[in-house]
Amino acid sequence: MARIYNFSAGPSMLPEVVLLKAQQEMLDWQGSGMSVMEMSHRGKEFMAIAESMKNDFVELLAIPANYKVLFLQGGATAQFAMIPQNILNGKAKACYANTGAWSTGAIKEAGKYCEVGIAASSEQAGFTTIPDFADWVVDDEAAYLHYTSNETIHGVEFNDVPDAKGLPLVCDMSSNILSRPVDVSRYGLIYAGTQKNMGPSGVTVVIVREDLVGLAPKTVPSVFNYEQQAKSDSMLNTPATYNWYLLGLVLQWLKGEGGVAEIEQRNIRKADKLYQAIDQSSLYSNPVVKECRSRMNIPFVLADANLDKEFLSLAEKNGLGSLKGHRSVGGMRASIYNAMPEAGVDALIAFMAEFERTH
Amino acid sequence: MARIYNFSAGPSMLPEVVLLKAQQEMLDWQGSGMSVMEMSHRGKEFMAIAESMKNDFVELLAIPANYKVLFLQGGATAQFAMIPQNILNGKAKACYANTGAWSTGAIKEAGKYCEVGIAASSEQAGFTTIPDFADWVVDDEAAYLHYTSNETIHGVEFNDVPDAKGLPLVCDMSSNILSRPVDVSRYGLIYAGTQKNMGPSGVTVVIVREDLVGLAPKTVPSVFNYEQQAKSDSMLNTPATYNWYLLGLVLQWLKGEGGVAEIEQRNIRKADKLYQAIDQSSLYSNPVVKECRSRMNIPFVLADANLDKEFLSLAEKNGLGSLKGHRSVGGMRASIYNAMPEAGVDALIAFMAEFERTH
Repeated sequence: MARIYNFSAGPSMLPEVVLLKAQQEMLDWQGSGMSVMEMSHRGKEFMAIAESMKNDFVELLAIPANYKVLFLQGGATAQFAMIPQNILNGKAKACYANTGAWSTGAIKEAGKYCEVGIAASSEQAGFTTIPDFADWVVDDEAAYLHYTSNETIHGVEFNDVPDAKGLPLVCDMSSNILSRPVDVSRYGLIYAGTQKNMGPSGVTVVIVREDLVGLAPKTVPSVFNYEQQAKSDSMLNTPATYNWYLLGLVLQWLKGEGGVAEIEQRNIRKADKLYQAIDQSSLYSNPVVKECRSRMNIPFVLADANLDKEFLSLAEKNGLGSLKGHRSVGGMRASIYNAMPEAGVDALIAFMAEFERTH
Repeated sequence: MARIYNFSAGPSMLPEVVLLKAQQEMLDWQGSGMSVMEMSHRGKEFMAIAESMKNDFVELLAIPANYKVLFLQGGATAQFAMIPQNILNGKAKACYANTGAWSTGAIKEAGKYCEVGIAASSEQAGFTTIPDFADWVVDDEAAYLHYTSNETIHGVEFNDVPDAKGLPLVCDMSSNILSRPVDVSRYGLIYAGTQKNMGPSGVTVVIVREDLVGLAPKTVPSVFNYEQQAKSDSMLNTPATYNWYLLGLVLQWLKGEGGVAEIEQRNIRKADKLYQAIDQSSLYSNPVVKECRSRMNIPFVLADANLDKEFLSLAEKNGLGSLKGHRSVGGMRASIYNAMPEAGVDALIAFMAEFERTH
């Protein structure tokens, strides 16, 4: 079968050139006689791959020198626990904004380690909006303020950075990292799983300001102690080497495409045209307040839910995969990360129009 | 360059047919139009890959029905913390045997969570032997007894199972799992990183008896709570999907080769001939007591350490890679896991003989 346009929320579509390169190098990386996945993580070949990947990451996000960049495991879900365990710094409370399923998850896990103050919540509004920053309640006794910059399930995205009122600002950027420029210096800590905009699953990136490193009590497992991992270049345990390599290939691709500023323009264009198609139709609708709509994850429902099954089945026949919405919200969801070509969005829009015409 | 024989201690050599299959399926897994690494972990394609991998693993090790098999992240090093955190069950102490660098690491990390009783130690003997089981001191108030079945750095391997005197027996099998049959029913918990005998790095397998699941206090991070991961089929966070797939390919290969009993015969043959070559030479020597010698990791030193550099450089020119010993013990180390063909061991022995003849 030909390659499909894959709208999965993650793991998700990768640039074809990345897959081709990985395919070509599978049995022999650059004359080494080894696959990257066979290399010792301490060997010169893999060390070069790792260094180049890290440098590209720092360059693409323009990360200031006073930040450590860690490549860990366990997903954002592990960070939900490791963040309070590492940076509470003796304080009893942290503040969280609740803007969807992922912030809800972060809040639940943090509650094991500290009192959680809800700085803002859109739960009553069905997570279709982001509360006005002016109304956020940030307790100056709290250790940090946490939010989720893009809610993969509810399709809500922050276009601005909330005011942390002097607290370290912590952000789960799992589903929109590298999709738009970020002023890293406004954050205490940024984290993200790789499986949306950065590569296959299996790596969690943590960007942490140096003053937040070294605060963990000694009961934190070594592999999740930011200081120990920083000192070991994220190799305290054997890293997921092949995943680092693939992450590196995606970063090289992104640089070649013009970097984060250029990809943002494409992401705006792709999202704008899909939302326009949804808003102009009478069959499809998206419930999210316009200025909070995600560029990455676009949920939509059909006016007649009885048509869902046929929509999905016909879409699949037309090479448009993984469009089923998350079970908690139903309907459809088109995830259009960096690697989704504009032609994929065009194909989806054309399919949706044809489906509406014939149903 | 042609493929080399790669003696890395891990990540390590993989069967060429596994790499060829992964290469062939890289852009399109079985007509799905997607790479495995692009698939949603909740989609039917990946669920089938995961189920087949898990079934093959259970079959190869003949794991009884009262065990849960988890596929986690963070390496054995994460388990060093998670084991006491999950199974201390309110007790204040656990017993550990210290037979090399890896047991030492496990002991150090466990010390954060409980009192550690040293059941046995070969530290005074430079980790070149395994203390007689009759002399082990196992405290019946302890929560479990832990040992490391193969010490990757010191080249020491257990050929028998220690007597846990009624305590749950816990074993780090990272570097010899699937290399020989194991009677799983004698263990409370077995764990292993994938990067030696099972595939690329990035997955940690935990085989845990059901009565040890569900004992964790609620402060254990969800992703490292055995009960929560068991209930989620190891998908509480997004798993390292491509790594699961590659693990599955290695397991299929192993089944095709005749399974664990057959591979053990090959491993015995490979190790025997290499030790014989070392013992018969006057240039090479291995310090480990014969009945404790590892079949997987064979460290050896040259009578004249000044020759080390030339040995390594000539070996590399002859397509024999990653033979440098671990920095803590020096000399050489040949790691010959399941995927190292007998021809690779033969090539190493021939090279060693020729080097000895000319030096």
